[in-house]
Amino acid sequence: MGKLLIVGTVAFDAIETPFGKTDKILGGAATYIGLSASHFGVESGIVSIVGGDFPQKHLDMFHNKNIDASGIEIKKEGKTFFWSGKYHNDLNTRDTLITDLNVLADFNPVVPENFKDCDFLMLGNLHPEVQMSVINQIKKRPKLIVLDTMNFWMDNTMDTLLKVIKKIDVITINDEEARQLSGEYSLVRAAQKIHKMGPKYVVIKKGEHGALLFNNGKVFFAPALPLEEVFDPTGAGDTFAGGFIGYLANTLDISFENMKRAVIYGSNLASFCVEKFGTERMVDLSKEEIQNRLKQFKELTQFEIELN
Amino acid sequence: MGKLLIVGTVAFDAIETPFGKTDKILGGAATYIGLSASHFGVESGIVSIVGGDFPQKHLDMFHNKNIDASGIEIKKEGKTFFWSGKYHNDLNTRDTLITDLNVLADFNPVVPENFKDCDFLMLGNLHPEVQMSVINQIKKRPKLIVLDTMNFWMDNTMDTLLKVIKKIDVITINDEEARQLSGEYSLVRAAQKIHKMGPKYVVIKKGEHGALLFNNGKVFFAPALPLEEVFDPTGAGDTFAGGFIGYLANTLDISFENMKRAVIYGSNLASFCVEKFGTERMVDLSKEEIQNRLKQFKELTQFEIELN
Repeated sequence: MGKLLIVGTVAFDAIETPFGKTDKILGGAATYIGLSASHFGVESGIVSIVGGDFPQKHLDMFHNKNIDASGIEIKKEGKTFFWSGKYHNDLNTRDTLITDLNVLADFNPVVPENFKDCDFLMLGNLHPEVQMSVINQIKKRPKLIVLDTMNFWMDNTMDTLLKVIKKIDVITINDEEARQLSGEYSLVRAAQKIHKMGPKYVVIKKGEHGALLFNNGKVFFAPALPLEEVFDPTGAGDTFAGGFIGYLANTLDISFENMKRAVIYGSNLASFCVEKFGTERMVDLSKEEIQNRLKQFKELTQFEIELN
Repeated sequence: MGKLLIVGTVAFDAIETPFGKTDKILGGAATYIGLSASHFGVESGIVSIVGGDFPQKHLDMFHNKNIDASGIEIKKEGKTFFWSGKYHNDLNTRDTLITDLNVLADFNPVVPENFKDCDFLMLGNLHPEVQMSVINQIKKRPKLIVLDTMNFWMDNTMDTLLKVIKKIDVITINDEEARQLSGEYSLVRAAQKIHKMGPKYVVIKKGEHGALLFNNGKVFFAPALPLEEVFDPTGAGDTFAGGFIGYLANTLDISFENMKRAVIYGSNLASFCVEKFGTERMVDLSKEEIQNRLKQFKELTQFEIELN
């Protein structure tokens, strides 16, 4: 079992979908990643920052899920990062209504002593300077560094982002971001170009259309589970990443064969995330439910054909 | 080995993609379906209509591929159905520039005597009245009837289309068409509603995002092969359908397990179709290439996870 460090946002989200709307609820990349990875029983910790308005009950929840929250700085005089968005009817597109950076505006991440020897490092979507600072605080090179990012950083801080990308093993981005980063429309060609930037593994997330795992010419595909209803897609990508790295940290095996299993688990966990608002479904999810869904993934994808 | 009857268009296409453009080349749903199914060595025949402008060399090509063309009526004084389209840069969308129905405008299909006892019937995208007429000419109920259709017939002849849909076993349509036919956005719910219209099997084609096979609660997914370059998507959906029914006709097994293999073969054949303009790639394709690609499909999708 490996030790997993997660850096990313811990936030408040207010979400509106065709099915309803929420007040400020718990959100943030590190939250979703941590909750998803917690289902694999790994020792994990979060590095993040919140304001004085962040309720103790959420910190208690992390603790109950075996997620070390001592790396979450509480800036008493500040307010927690707040995002508000409204999804369109097809749930594939959304408008951002509010982005209040608040305490995130000048976040200097501090990695706790007991996580400076982490085996797995997950750099959630954040300013590339923050991601770089965390990499530099780790004492020995982790077994695996996974990075998530978004188009915003490509638009505004591409040089710094490229420096971070050079130092990591796995990048997880969506299809549009892969196209923007590489300048290639074909995802096969995009992955080839991104390999040359550093990462040996490229994971391209396509939302309801599944995810592709590339490793220098090899490719594996994990579909999304076809669902009767998607209730709220918020956090699905981070939940995918958390399931991916959580499974790898649990098994301590970073072979391509095991990464195939990891993307299937990522897709598995993400399929639960979208069933309720925010983190609700991830908090009450049981091991048995995950195993049952794994059976569904096998039925969805596995076939027997003899090669001649 | 089953006998396969295909009804559909045999046409001229003029295609423009970001990579180039063609003059009038051989096209049409029945052409792509027939060529794709021919790779499974089944005895097949096409029912269609062409004009006096249709060159003998194309009929010879059908003959060489073991496709019986005696059901293709040649209306000497008429002109062959002509379609012209231009693809956008992403190749996912296209504008139709010309649709000249020509001889197709008053097509009365006549099933040749030796195909009135066919085991497999593929109703390519055509006016539902034509599809119904062919069903009515078959002497005994085929083992399997597969139907393809499109939004145009839903917009203009829904009542007739629904009567045809009631009589078939498998419907193959794309995601937008499944949504239009069912009034449901979720493809899982769409399939449930379409089952109630008649077909026990619903195949939803999602282009580069693969295809879903539904059978009353069971679901299987065949991805599209991630390609470095898609050259011309014309005919990919029909090639998929031809691979699907060709494999089933070859194996004479219409169990759900075998249909899984059939959609994988459909996706396999379609991945070749898009590599060159029109039918070019389908004509020179070898058995060995198909088997090699099957190996790629297995690597793309198969994984080992123990269920607890």
